[in-house]
Amino acid sequence: MIAVHCGAGHYSSKSLKDYKLLSKRACKKGMAVIESGGTAVQAVNEAIIVLENDPLTNAGFGSNLTLEGNIECDASVMNGENLLFGACGAVKKVKNPISLAYDIYKRQLLPLPLGLVSPQLVVGSGALMHAKKAGLKVVKQHKLISKKALKCHIKYKSILESIHSGNEDTNEIYLTEVSAESSYSNRNDTVGAVCIDEKGHVAAGCSSGGLVLKRSGRVGQAAHYGAGVWADSFTNDRPKIAVCTTGCGEQIVQTLLAKTIAEDLILEKVCPTVDLHNCLTDKFIRSRFLTRSHVSKLGGALALRADVTKAEVSLLWGHTTSSLAVGYMKKGEKPHSQISILPDKAQEGHSVIVSGAEFYMDST
Amino acid sequence: MIAVHCGAGHYSSKSLKDYKLLSKRACKKGMAVIESGGTAVQAVNEAIIVLENDPLTNAGFGSNLTLEGNIECDASVMNGENLLFGACGAVKKVKNPISLAYDIYKRQLLPLPLGLVSPQLVVGSGALMHAKKAGLKVVKQHKLISKKALKCHIKYKSILESIHSGNEDTNEIYLTEVSAESSYSNRNDTVGAVCIDEKGHVAAGCSSGGLVLKRSGRVGQAAHYGAGVWADSFTNDRPKIAVCTTGCGEQIVQTLLAKTIAEDLILEKVCPTVDLHNCLTDKFIRSRFLTRSHVSKLGGALALRADVTKAEVSLLWGHTTSSLAVGYMKKGEKPHSQISILPDKAQEGHSVIVSGAEFYMDST
Repeated sequence: MIAVHCGAGHYSSKSLKDYKLLSKRACKKGMAVIESGGTAVQAVNEAIIVLENDPLTNAGFGSNLTLEGNIECDASVMNGENLLFGACGAVKKVKNPISLAYDIYKRQLLPLPLGLVSPQLVVGSGALMHAKKAGLKVVKQHKLISKKALKCHIKYKSILESIHSGNEDTNEIYLTEVSAESSYSNRNDTVGAVCIDEKGHVAAGCSSGGLVLKRSGRVGQAAHYGAGVWADSFTNDRPKIAVCTTGCGEQIVQTLLAKTIAEDLILEKVCPTVDLHNCLTDKFIRSRFLTRSHVSKLGGALALRADVTKAEVSLLWGHTTSSLAVGYMKKGEKPHSQISILPDKAQEGHSVIVSGAEFYMDST
Repeated sequence: MIAVHCGAGHYSSKSLKDYKLLSKRACKKGMAVIESGGTAVQAVNEAIIVLENDPLTNAGFGSNLTLEGNIECDASVMNGENLLFGACGAVKKVKNPISLAYDIYKRQLLPLPLGLVSPQLVVGSGALMHAKKAGLKVVKQHKLISKKALKCHIKYKSILESIHSGNEDTNEIYLTEVSAESSYSNRNDTVGAVCIDEKGHVAAGCSSGGLVLKRSGRVGQAAHYGAGVWADSFTNDRPKIAVCTTGCGEQIVQTLLAKTIAEDLILEKVCPTVDLHNCLTDKFIRSRFLTRSHVSKLGGALALRADVTKAEVSLLWGHTTSSLAVGYMKKGEKPHSQISILPDKAQEGHSVIVSGAEFYMDST
């Protein structure tokens, strides 16, 4: 079983079909890895490459531009089998940041001389150097900029400059417009994938171009341990969990959201669906760590929970943003995809919607 | 009350006096802030600047060099009053990385237009740009390199090159030598400070030059949320806790050690001293997240716990490394300092030693 999402945000109605198709394509690519005997962490890497290469998503090609007009990406992967994590942050020119995160993860499996320790998080120019040495595809900066992302950058940068120049009349018009469009949620955040393989091991990965007009060097949740992804199938004595999160990076880091969700889902206080809903409500929207946050709490998560004793797999997704495109695929079946939409009455950033699907383990 | 440490590691016997004097100087500087009506987070910043500027420590001037021979620093600060966190990672040329982390923290207090979110973690060249804009002192790279750090870099790099060249005889000699000296613990890691101010608010900060021969772009625990520092005095209904950690960065990130210690100290299962000992034993040395780690579990922590209902402040420090230099100072008193040493029988990386001191709140 593999599942992906295209980022918690606001999808335009005309793009819904494209998001559904993209989700399916990413699932197929990941499932091909599993069907050829690969592992969950390999499948997650391959599925996210598909998402990164598509300009629809805010990851890899098509990422949001920084304030200075560059592309700087974050990505991470965690393998539940060994609990190892690899991440890259604020990296330029790397075509597939998830593959760099995956390479950083893999190198931790090899012991180093002198008691040296392999890094878990590599950033900036050092990350680019690592990618080149690892033989990953490096492209010119402009090759990662999509027309849509550039248009968005130009638009919001001009609004920002107008505000800074103190033209209040302009501000009012722009701010009303921006408020209606919700600058953040309009450009979907972090994409991600979760997977359980034939051996029952889970993995999670995510990749992000970061927030609109982010500062150069800013690292978001997609590169933060415990925030962007979590995966744990280390022992058989408890449920196996893989989680990837999406939304406003700083809020997700402050709530260490992926790890927090995983811990709540392992406990199974009520049932996975209710537990995810409660977690996103109590530990994200109402989190005391976000009291100072001046903006709406925008986040989402995709989670896979496998209960070996009951031979049940729960796939869950929830978000406070207006939409989340999700795709999933069982071995030997066609991929499914759907767009989860926050109800009309619910206010973005203040309400949570959770959906899910249940499967038996022998057919995942 | 302010307390500092100079990094968990192995101090040479001839340097013990210097570490004690340095700890006292840092405490005095931090306490001067408190005595002039400043806050805990301001005091932590000032105390750590003293530690960074001294070549004895692996932070700021005197930091370990990367594999390529550069200085790249990590630092972070957390204010328990508002639970906000600021950090910089893999930053070059900034004289005082802690002040950059502090600036990144402070900017989160100001709302931005367009619903933009201030970054929590800024890295690499973007972090350097941020420092310049903030008017922080930027120096030439070589100005941060101490003679001792350069000597250490040359020595271990030549050993590494010898290993890579496959000269096994050389390996054996060197590895024995390195094993005896313990390359990591020989160059003390992350320095830190914790403080409680007149209003009863706590803060924690840390700063690090990272591991010997670290990869360019590697970000360690000193810049990771939940790993290097934790501070929480958000509400009066539970103990106020500030923690800073030190040791092998990747291990401390994987165990989110500062947050983990804070959570255990808040609960007070037995007493703060035993709780810290148990936490470092069960959730660090024996952590399932470190099962794959090929090296000893090297870590330490300095923690402050203030129980308002009992008007008690506990100051605690513990480590698995051979030594930890600690200093602390109450308002209106002289600073104290001491070197905590792992007993002869105990094996570095496998045993924990914890010490502490108790105070009444009205005199902190």
